[in-house]
Amino acid sequence: MGRVTERRRVIRVRDGVVSTRPDTLVAEEPLEIRLGGKPLAITMRTPGDDFALAAGFLVSEGVLASADELANIVYCAGAAEDGRNTYNVVDVRLADGVPVPDITLERNVYTTSSCGLCGKASLDAVRTSARWTLDTSPDTPVRIEPATLATLPDRLRAAQRVFDRTGGLHAAALFTPDGELLDVREDVGRHNAVDKVVGRALQQGLLPLSSCVLMVSGRASFELAQKAVMAGIPVLAAVSAPSSLAVDLAAETGLTLVGFLRGASMNVYAGEHRLALRATTATTSTG
Amino acid sequence: MGRVTERRRVIRVRDGVVSTRPDTLVAEEPLEIRLGGKPLAITMRTPGDDFALAAGFLVSEGVLASADELANIVYCAGAAEDGRNTYNVVDVRLADGVPVPDITLERNVYTTSSCGLCGKASLDAVRTSARWTLDTSPDTPVRIEPATLATLPDRLRAAQRVFDRTGGLHAAALFTPDGELLDVREDVGRHNAVDKVVGRALQQGLLPLSSCVLMVSGRASFELAQKAVMAGIPVLAAVSAPSSLAVDLAAETGLTLVGFLRGASMNVYAGEHRLALRATTATTSTG
Repeated sequence: MGRVTERRRVIRVRDGVVSTRPDTLVAEEPLEIRLGGKPLAITMRTPGDDFALAAGFLVSEGVLASADELANIVYCAGAAEDGRNTYNVVDVRLADGVPVPDITLERNVYTTSSCGLCGKASLDAVRTSARWTLDTSPDTPVRIEPATLATLPDRLRAAQRVFDRTGGLHAAALFTPDGELLDVREDVGRHNAVDKVVGRALQQGLLPLSSCVLMVSGRASFELAQKAVMAGIPVLAAVSAPSSLAVDLAAETGLTLVGFLRGASMNVYAGEHRLALRATTATTSTG
Repeated sequence: MGRVTERRRVIRVRDGVVSTRPDTLVAEEPLEIRLGGKPLAITMRTPGDDFALAAGFLVSEGVLASADELANIVYCAGAAEDGRNTYNVVDVRLADGVPVPDITLERNVYTTSSCGLCGKASLDAVRTSARWTLDTSPDTPVRIEPATLATLPDRLRAAQRVFDRTGGLHAAALFTPDGELLDVREDVGRHNAVDKVVGRALQQGLLPLSSCVLMVSGRASFELAQKAVMAGIPVLAAVSAPSSLAVDLAAETGLTLVGFLRGASMNVYAGEHRLALRATTATTSTG
């Protein structure tokens, strides 16, 4: 836990009164992810669960889908000024026979070769690279009560260990459809928090996460919806708003996308077949 | 404004009552930024101010520092399925004589060639690539009253045009030290909102923004602090928490960094010489 937070001096101003005291901040450091020794990506992250972060990132990129495709992950030997390992560079080795992606292409996973980059190209890229298909039948085995969903934000917040001390961390958590908390990770970057949860699940041999709910503390962007789909997660719930492309991806892949989940109040943007909504109370308005 | 928001159907659940209605979401689409025809980066952004976003991104990367270094920016002709321009690919041409960066290197701007990647390497990269130096003398010409800072969050929120309809947008705004709003931009990505503000200022010949306050709606990460420094902005104020590396960068470069700015309450993490704090009321505690 040593580097998850750091102490800095802060000058507090409260209604004109000025005081100086130590403050606890969320730690942010770069992490370079290498694949077979070659640099693949750099992310600004909160140190901790770095191997899970690297593994989860590679799930999102379509490189890894199961624990046996992963040979090992190591910290590169350090070359910091004082000779110590910075623990900010990890190298991932894939198992024999697992194809190593073209790294140049991989960094541009949403780039099309033509000039016609559009949201649809992004959706296509996810659809063609996903290893699993989300169940879209009305008889889905994953069925969730809205009343259970309503309990998740409080459970997520209660499970966040660092947020209350720093106010600076995003969280991602996996729940069962019954609302049982399976795992929670925090990071200064919302994408990293999801990658850490997914990477830990991969390391434990749990992918695809086909009976899990992924809950995130912030908004639901395209990239978070993409990460859910790539891990085989059928339900993504967010405290705040989704974007248009996140909704489009959810509708296209069969992902259940819930936004503005705040107690008993929520908006369902796609995949409502997994929610036990009472049809008898349904009304339709165009307002 | 057409693509800043999009309409989607949403199922609302409010205390067990289910209704279906149209909802307004923040639009999210990929933008590919090319430099001299070569792909440089892809960002998921809210359409609008795309040329400013591209210009501001290149300021942050140390490629552009003034309007006369920029020849032009154009949308690439479309190659979408229906033949229309997607308006999601822009190409930036630098003026004659402006060095084009090694794009491979540029995408790894914080990578060191050794294994010793660390926060310090990130700080070094910003320091060596910044075109201007922030004034660190006690007699700084930029001096701000905390009472003025206290008014900025409400002014930022009042100036946000789209947030209230979608709940999904980050905002970045430039203010004078007297609290006058100069510009505000919104985007699904916090970095993009800052790039749009900086890019518009570059296009107007206003860089370095040496007498401006940059206010952001969320947290203050390393990358946002970096963008402020690269644009010559001396004061960064955020509604929420800063990270450790943002504070370190601010302390190293002389940037004034204010976090948790909520009315008359704020935390000053670095660069307090620009704030008119009353020394007579200062107390020190170690709590």
